[in-house]
Formats: sequence, structure tokens, C-alpha cells
Amino acid sequence: MLYLIGLGLGDERDITLRGLEIVKKCKKVYIEAYTSLLSFGISSVGCSTLEELYGRSITLADREMVEERANDILSEARDSHVAFLVVGDPFGATTHTDLVVRAKKMGVEVKVVHNASVMNAVGACGLQLYRYGETVSIPFFTESWRPDSFYEKIQINRTLGLHTLCLLDIRVKEPSLESLCRGKKQYEPPRYMTINTAIEQLLEVEQTRGESVYNEDTTCVGFARLGSEDQMVVVGSLRQLLMVDFGAPLHCLVIVGKTHPVEEEMLDFYTVRKETPGLKEKETA
Amino acid sequence: MLYLIGLGLGDERDITLRGLEIVKKCKKVYIEAYTSLLSFGISSVGCSTLEELYGRSITLADREMVEERANDILSEARDSHVAFLVVGDPFGATTHTDLVVRAKKMGVEVKVVHNASVMNAVGACGLQLYRYGETVSIPFFTESWRPDSFYEKIQINRTLGLHTLCLLDIRVKEPSLESLCRGKKQYEPPRYMTINTAIEQLLEVEQTRGESVYNEDTTCVGFARLGSEDQMVVVGSLRQLLMVDFGAPLHCLVIVGKTHPVEEEMLDFYTVRKETPGLKEKETA
Repeated sequence: MLYLIGLGLGDERDITLRGLEIVKKCKKVYIEAYTSLLSFGISSVGCSTLEELYGRSITLADREMVEERANDILSEARDSHVAFLVVGDPFGATTHTDLVVRAKKMGVEVKVVHNASVMNAVGACGLQLYRYGETVSIPFFTESWRPDSFYEKIQINRTLGLHTLCLLDIRVKEPSLESLCRGKKQYEPPRYMTINTAIEQLLEVEQTRGESVYNEDTTCVGFARLGSEDQMVVVGSLRQLLMVDFGAPLHCLVIVGKTHPVEEEMLDFYTVRKETPGLKEKETA
Repeated sequence: MLYLIGLGLGDERDITLRGLEIVKKCKKVYIEAYTSLLSFGISSVGCSTLEELYGRSITLADREMVEERANDILSEARDSHVAFLVVGDPFGATTHTDLVVRAKKMGVEVKVVHNASVMNAVGACGLQLYRYGETVSIPFFTESWRPDSFYEKIQINRTLGLHTLCLLDIRVKEPSLESLCRGKKQYEPPRYMTINTAIEQLLEVEQTRGESVYNEDTTCVGFARLGSEDQMVVVGSLRQLLMVDFGAPLHCLVIVGKTHPVEEEMLDFYTVRKETPGLKEKETA
């Protein structure tokens, strides 16, 4: 049996009782290392915090390993209980559909233990989840690659009065260009897009495309470390949020659509003020 | 401090370790009874399964109580730790924004412990969460009240190739018409809309409106008891799903938009077949 177990968004204590019970009975435990494991006490030297709490040794599985060794993992799961831990929900922002498809094709049974993901936890700012349109991803721009397909999607959402969740790029274990040329695998340090970078890119695209989808005065919600003890939620115009230092990753951004009074009341509590932590000098609400 | 704690979707073991730690230290524990508590061992006689596991006595809070006694609950929370348990995620399909707004206005600190909700757990069928449009709600039709505003929303989603999550009506603790006339409060038994009723209503609205937004052959995914041990996921046309008995609540329905190959592979595993449990006679895929 292959168990896909969501770990939630905060730290090792966000696993569910059901998830923990299963981990404890599994012969082998993997954890996906595609995204961010920063808050889970996991480093290059191991998964000690998790291992201590869960009472199991845990194998870090990066995308390469899962792609190359999927058949081994799934063979193990045919004969014994194997847990595959995933930050957030197994079918949240990062999907593990591929692994499930492979498992089912091999006749390996799959069970899922759900948990919170960014897709529902953004509800914390008070914007109703059923008033969101299509989610967009904002990739890191490079000198030569500045894809802006998110622009039309935001445009459609805004025309419909819907909110837009913007997921910000994560680059983990990217081979460096130099190492690719040399044919020897070496990796870039991980990169997590900040809200500030996302806003700069959004405004650049608006300037290029010029269809007035949003502007510096458009109200947005910036989230950092959503679901953690030290999460940060700040509401303000794009220009205002550009002046806020949101600190450590992960960040995401919501572009606010048409609001209802109760949504506005909630947003008001998070609106950027002089005393907002991380607010850079000279900027006042 | 007021803690809003998500319980997840299955049963009492779907609380997170973080959530359980908090419940155990709270002086007073409420549980919202707005929606479905069927699988949480809660009945009119009490919350024994939860109380046993959590080691706390739990007060059932229906909408009336929360509205009428919110100030009492929040006063308690000003002086001590109070937990308010919510099925799913606190900001999932059922929102508790009102209570949070009131708390913040009274200067009561609020902390949220997130968990899975239907809004992200529907990812289990393989349709990507970021390819969903606006969520719609399908209310029980009555003789004189047949609201169909979901029709335009589904139309927009389908035009954009997006999937549509349909949340189905729940009627808990509705005063009976008879009791309203007599001025004495008596309640109707709880009602949970089945997928079958939802499909009948959807097809009725299509027939009335006639804008070819969907038809009997439109592919959908029916979910029953999502996140529970005995969850059911069946993919088929509206006509096919009409022939499936999905059993106990809660149900929800996804109208499938434009699909990618990996989405199709996953849907295929759940496609209605002769051996699909609950399939009524004469219907074959």
C-alpha cells in the first residue's frame, strides 16, 4: 500500500493523528523534496525533527529520485506499507498525480491523507474561497524568458470580479547552467520568489501589455509562511506591498476582486499601517 | 485567545497534532454544528467520540447559539483559552469570518489551525486545483423557489475550459414551517443534497435555460464522504452518475472542463464501470 500523506503548512506538528498513525506503521517513509521543507526541520544533513517525532527514518526524495526510482518505491509499496510525505496536501499546489497514476497502473493500492494546503489556507485573510477564479503561477523572469500568460487569466478573473491566487515560483535543485555545459551535475542554491519580485514582474507585464488589468493602486493580500506560527498577512496596494519586507519564504499573493462587506471588514484588520512589521521607511498607509 | 481549529474531513483522527495540543489546554471547547458532523461520532446525545479522544467536554454550537451567544463565547476567550472546532478548514466551504471579525473588534486574539477542506481535497480525483473556476452552490429547489444563478457561473467556467466544483445544499436545524406558524421552535430533520438530486436540478435548469452549457453527456466527478475511509469517487456522464447510489452524505460534484492527459489518466481509474459499487441495474458504462 502506498500512502500519500499531507503534512500541512506549518511544521512537523501539522500532521494529522491519522497520518501519524500510518507513518508509524510504515516500513519505509519518503518525503518529497520538490518544494519547501524549510519549516520542517529538514536540512541537507537529514530530517531529524520529523524523524524524532515520527519515530521513523525518513528518506528525502527529490524530483529526480522519484522519476528515476518510482518503480523501486512502488515495488516496495506492493509488498509493504510505504508512506510518501508531502508538504501541504498531496493534491495541493504541487501535484503528485503522476506517482498515483503509476501506482495504479502497477496495481499498487493508494490511500491519501489530506491536509491543509495554500489553496484553502488563503481563506484566512477573509476573502471567500468560492469567490476565487483560476489560480495563476508567476515564474521567475530571466533575461530572455519572460512568460506572461498569467496576465490574461488575471484579466478574466478581474472582469468577473473574482479574486486571483498567485503562486510564486520555487526553484529547488535546478542544475546550474555551468554544470549542464560540463555534463556534471551541480545545483543552484534554492530560490523562492518574494512578493516584492512578483509585484515587480506583475507591474512590468502591465506596462508592456497596457490593458489596464491592474495597476499600482490595486488592492492585494501578501502572505508569508502561511499556516506557520509566524505567518504574515498584509493587505495593501501593489505599491504599498512593494515596501514591505515579508521575510523568509514561502510567499504568495492574492489580487483582490470585487468584495463583500464582511470580506472588507476582515481585510481591514490586515491593512498595511505605520506599525506593520517589515514596513520599510518612508512608506505610510 | 480564541482558537479556530479545523478538524479535517474524515473523523476525529483527522485533527492535527497542533490542533489536539491546543484543544487539550483549552478551558472551553465548542464545536460548530452548522454542517455535517455525521462522521465525527456526534449525535444529539453528545460528542462522546471526540470528547474521549480529546479529553475535554465539548459544547455543540449551532448557528443560533453562535449568533446569540457570540459575546459570551468571546468574553470567555478574552480571559482564557477557548477552542472553536470546525469540520474541514475554518475558512473552507463554511466560513467563520463573522466570528473572527467580532473577536477582533472586541480585541480578542484569534489563532487558526488549518486542515483539509473539500476545496482542496477534491484534488484527489486528479483534476488540477489550479484549473478550477468559481465554485458554485446548488440549493434545494422548492415548489416556488428555484434559483439558478449557478448556471451562468458554470457557463463562464466551461467557456474558459475550467472545472467547476458544485457544493450541494445542507439544511441543518431548519425551523419547520408549521412551528414558525405556531411561534414554537421545532426543527425539520437535517437534509443533505445527494448527487442525484443535484444532477436532476442541473438538468432541469439546462432544459429551462436552453443555452447548452452542459447536457446529459457532460463528464462529471461525483464525490461522497470525501476524505473518509469509505469515500467514493465516480467519474461518468451526468446521465451515468444519476444511476449511481452514492450512499450517505456529504456529496459534492465536479463538472469537468478541458482536461490534460495526466488528468485524463487519473479520471480513467474512477470511471463508472459495471462493477462500480452502488450502480443501479441496467446501467452499464
